Amino acid sequence: MSRPTPLSGFPEWLPAERIVEQRFLDHLRHTFELWGYTPIQTRAVEPLEQLLRKGEIDKEVYVLRRLQADAADDSDAGLALHYDLTVPFARYVLEHAGRLNFPFKRYQIQPAWRGERPQEGRFREFVQADIDVVGAGTLPFHYEAELPLVVAEALRGFHLPPVVMQVNNRKVSQGFFRAVGLEDLAGVLRVVDKLDKIGPARVHEVLVAETGASDAQATAVLRFASIRAEDASVADQVLALGASDPMLDDGLEELVRVVETARVHAPGLVVADLRIARGLDYYTGTVYETLAVGHESIGSICSGGRYDTLATSGSDTYPGVGLSIGVTRLLSFVFSRKLVTASRSVPTAVLVAVVDEASRATSDAVARALRARGIPTEVAPRAEKFGKQIRHADRRGIPFVWFPGADGAEDEVKDIRSGEQQPADAGSWEPPTEDLHPLVLATTIDEEPTP
Amino acid sequence: MSRPTPLSGFPEWLPAERIVEQRFLDHLRHTFELWGYTPIQTRAVEPLEQLLRKGEIDKEVYVLRRLQADAADDSDAGLALHYDLTVPFARYVLEHAGRLNFPFKRYQIQPAWRGERPQEGRFREFVQADIDVVGAGTLPFHYEAELPLVVAEALRGFHLPPVVMQVNNRKVSQGFFRAVGLEDLAGVLRVVDKLDKIGPARVHEVLVAETGASDAQATAVLRFASIRAEDASVADQVLALGASDPMLDDGLEELVRVVETARVHAPGLVVADLRIARGLDYYTGTVYETLAVGHESIGSICSGGRYDTLATSGSDTYPGVGLSIGVTRLLSFVFSRKLVTASRSVPTAVLVAVVDEASRATSDAVARALRARGIPTEVAPRAEKFGKQIRHADRRGIPFVWFPGADGAEDEVKDIRSGEQQPADAGSWEPPTEDLHPLVLATTIDEEPTP
Repeated sequence: MSRPTPLSGFPEWLPAERIVEQRFLDHLRHTFELWGYTPIQTRAVEPLEQLLRKGEIDKEVYVLRRLQADAADDSDAGLALHYDLTVPFARYVLEHAGRLNFPFKRYQIQPAWRGERPQEGRFREFVQADIDVVGAGTLPFHYEAELPLVVAEALRGFHLPPVVMQVNNRKVSQGFFRAVGLEDLAGVLRVVDKLDKIGPARVHEVLVAETGASDAQATAVLRFASIRAEDASVADQVLALGASDPMLDDGLEELVRVVETARVHAPGLVVADLRIARGLDYYTGTVYETLAVGHESIGSICSGGRYDTLATSGSDTYPGVGLSIGVTRLLSFVFSRKLVTASRSVPTAVLVAVVDEASRATSDAVARALRARGIPTEVAPRAEKFGKQIRHADRRGIPFVWFPGADGAEDEVKDIRSGEQQPADAGSWEPPTEDLHPLVLATTIDEEPTP
Repeated sequence: MSRPTPLSGFPEWLPAERIVEQRFLDHLRHTFELWGYTPIQTRAVEPLEQLLRKGEIDKEVYVLRRLQADAADDSDAGLALHYDLTVPFARYVLEHAGRLNFPFKRYQIQPAWRGERPQEGRFREFVQADIDVVGAGTLPFHYEAELPLVVAEALRGFHLPPVVMQVNNRKVSQGFFRAVGLEDLAGVLRVVDKLDKIGPARVHEVLVAETGASDAQATAVLRFASIRAEDASVADQVLALGASDPMLDDGLEELVRVVETARVHAPGLVVADLRIARGLDYYTGTVYETLAVGHESIGSICSGGRYDTLATSGSDTYPGVGLSIGVTRLLSFVFSRKLVTASRSVPTAVLVAVVDEASRATSDAVARALRARGIPTEVAPRAEKFGKQIRHADRRGIPFVWFPGADGAEDEVKDIRSGEQQPADAGSWEPPTEDLHPLVLATTIDEEPTP
């Protein structure tokens, strides 16, 4: 076998990076659980026809085929890998509804797959961390204001760049479009969604050409889409455009509540931005997109919205609202910019040296005593010269090397960073708390001292 | 959408089961890290030709195809889902060798996929938890004795049935076969591997018919394969058969060391069983299989072995040894027998009641104060009658309901199991430690009282 090369779009982390990822996922999980979200996982596959219900993504789906499929058992025919966690979750809710309690708050951290052309921030395999709340029949609005607060806590720490969550509300957009006399509400939304890509002049043209808008209507839509505010003034700005519609009023009330809740509890996080449309058809209320300040080009790192009919089976409907953090997008950015690192590439806090192979059992007994008190410990692979064994620890960032005492002498432990060596007893010695597990550290770039 | 039905072979857990699974995975991770194993994950896909190198599993592999594959970018053509974590790990080691430190101890907990016909203990999607140690060029033997000790700690607790690990050593089998004059060593091994399925009489026949064994040689092989011992006496039993071979001696020394190490540090765990062959060609030393006592029919729940040439690229070779715990097989057994349960189906320790929607912000503030001190808390979805809000908590197993005091009155907190209600302050109240997070409990089956 020749040396394998990486597969484009399928990122893999080195051990120290994986340690950082694990800490980040632990932090997400801890945050979600503090807010009462319960963990679930769904299988990696869904029937293809379920995945295609949402449309627009058919090109990106990976379909499965058993290498030697047989007619006798085709129960796994027509399966495809899920491309997000929302559609599988909606299916899970319908399938298990009788055994769930509603409103059902869940989080789900798993990979998803899309056959997209890989580029910065776009992968073919990527981990998402989702939170959703679904109700049976109805879902109170206040969860739409809660979700950004959860995400604000989830994205705190880890030396991540600051983020801004841009929110809008489908009722605001569609209510406004209706108020100015436009009829193809979904069509107008789709065109507005392209504002960042094609610019206002072209959006004006397309609105007129494709949605039957007059010049004045297109101008109104563009003025509407340029509104941006961090507080309740967003409603005044919209109303100043002179439009009036019950759906618009309803949506503005919700939008203001989301923005104002965040302004109090997560200042600087949320801004109402009426350009935000979100491509997916199923959103019916608040929609969210999140950009890393200064690094907008990597795309949204946390998106979602309110959906009323995604999970519907016959007469049962489960309206919901959800947000999805792009873990791989975020971490690949962090790793490629070398913003953080782990203090070591192994969990090990102590390497027990081996004096000679005949006394390996003595070293094993030290390791056992340390592990029994929760101290991650390994034993040197070979009874080499101590200098070599210390290098083994040093290369991995293991802070302590333990030397079993020969012939009744006391054991000693060396902090290989300071060189300090002291007598120690494996039944009672403790490393400093901060050395027990690897730490996630900001990478400091040494500056040249000014002469 | 009609109500979806489960997909055979793709198990999914309900929230309380997922909580148990998460705790089990946390425990595995904690154990592996205590022994110095570092975490990695590999992508879910490998090039098909890499997966087929190992042979014998081609029928079970799921191949991927992009729904609308295009000639302009076929960089994801020929990919398939991995069917275990050993082959991807060997590829990872070769690909990243320059940035890893050897010996490299890693653990990896991920799903794998096989297109097998589903039955008890056999799934199409299943989670494996693997530990492996690989060296650069050489790997000291002592890791073959370490691995069973790690697994013994990993499978302790969680009300799992007791397990027995059956070990053998390829050098023992092949050395013995050679010593009695057999030449097709791999062929004899494959036939012996079928002993459990087809029985000794048929194995005797097939040995004679297919491997060129004489009656006497087949009899010797069957006597050899019936040897079973929990200590060093395994070597005496083999030598009593009169065979002699340097490879056999070498293998027996290793086998005795694995068995004796386990006998001292994990009594009852390991038994030498010379029938154990393991189907895979690449094993070269110790091989392991693990059965749940009383539930042998679900198959091995932890298997692996020593491999010398799995990860080889040109002149570089990375010999290794690994063990793989079948997490899904084990947990599906535990769940189907209802051996354990979680004390609640949500992480939430406290539900804060809402007096009326106008005072929801007061309840939110209580929740914030509790969360700030690490207490998982949610706020009632609606300002219903308190009886209904208490039922909301009861249905999920949430132990405490918090009542914000109206009009300057003190807050109160109720333990809904005992009914006890007491004044409390959100800035200082603590639940009992055992109520902070869901517990994993053995399911006790109430017995009829004897009259």
